[in-house]
Amino acid sequence: MEIKGKKFTYKVINKRLPNGQMSRVELIEHPGAALMVPFLTKEKMIFLRQYRAVLEKYLYELPAGTLENKEKALTCAKRELIEETGYAAKKMTKLGRIYPVPGYSTEVIYIYKAEGLTAQSGLKDIDEIIQVRIFTRQEVQNLFQRKKIIDAKTICALAFCGWI
Amino acid sequence: MEIKGKKFTYKVINKRLPNGQMSRVELIEHPGAALMVPFLTKEKMIFLRQYRAVLEKYLYELPAGTLENKEKALTCAKRELIEETGYAAKKMTKLGRIYPVPGYSTEVIYIYKAEGLTAQSGLKDIDEIIQVRIFTRQEVQNLFQRKKIIDAKTICALAFCGWI
Repeated sequence: MEIKGKKFTYKVINKRLPNGQMSRVELIEHPGAALMVPFLTKEKMIFLRQYRAVLEKYLYELPAGTLENKEKALTCAKRELIEETGYAAKKMTKLGRIYPVPGYSTEVIYIYKAEGLTAQSGLKDIDEIIQVRIFTRQEVQNLFQRKKIIDAKTICALAFCGWI
Repeated sequence: MEIKGKKFTYKVINKRLPNGQMSRVELIEHPGAALMVPFLTKEKMIFLRQYRAVLEKYLYELPAGTLENKEKALTCAKRELIEETGYAAKKMTKLGRIYPVPGYSTEVIYIYKAEGLTAQSGLKDIDEIIQVRIFTRQEVQNLFQRKKIIDAKTICALAFCGWI
């Protein structure tokens, strides 16, 4: 079974396990995503306060977006940073990758450090409600310790940078 | 549209955004999960080396499992710890919660610190291929720095404990 959605494909397929058994697996086939850690200075980071319709909640998140039409992760990172924050980065450095839900989604998120930021006139995604927030390292650490940062990819990216 | 699967429900629904606009949202309705950080001693943690059929990869992960039949997160944590590691915990302390994919899944993962562990005869899930590994704090840090820990929930839980 397969249902192609706008953002991902839902599938139920049989997979062979390393022990030879077959397993029926429900999964999301996802094109992958890029997350950007935008350093405005060494001590200031650009965050988003973003409404998530799925959860009906606002979350603090680092900017991120889904890879479009087989674009490269770095291309996606540059595009999404401008679209979501209104800043372009002179320098992007790959920090690593994470699997947000290895149990049911093929999604991999590539994480980039973004530096040398300059403000652009940004275009916002229509289905998202996003506010740009600038936080110091201390503010980020306070938010994390007070459990106000609960988006997994954002926590991972902060750990990659040694900010939490 | 709605398809009830074994582990979650796939839905396409319309949601009203805070700005009044309607948005078509594809999502996974998920019962939630619990993750356990099992401290064998203050300096030793129980990890899993787990085959993920969806990714066709083995990942290092902390033990975790999906809430069954509206069970409480703590009940799930106690059950899954025994099922996946063969250890029971005398003490479970809630450390926080994370949203692994706020863009397309309602899943929330409750994170517990598990202490006072004693070995039990464990029952393994049939569809998973799991090996139990015991790591020191230094070994965990090395694995993280060498980008060998790439499961998002595991990285978040380690950050909650101050281990990375």
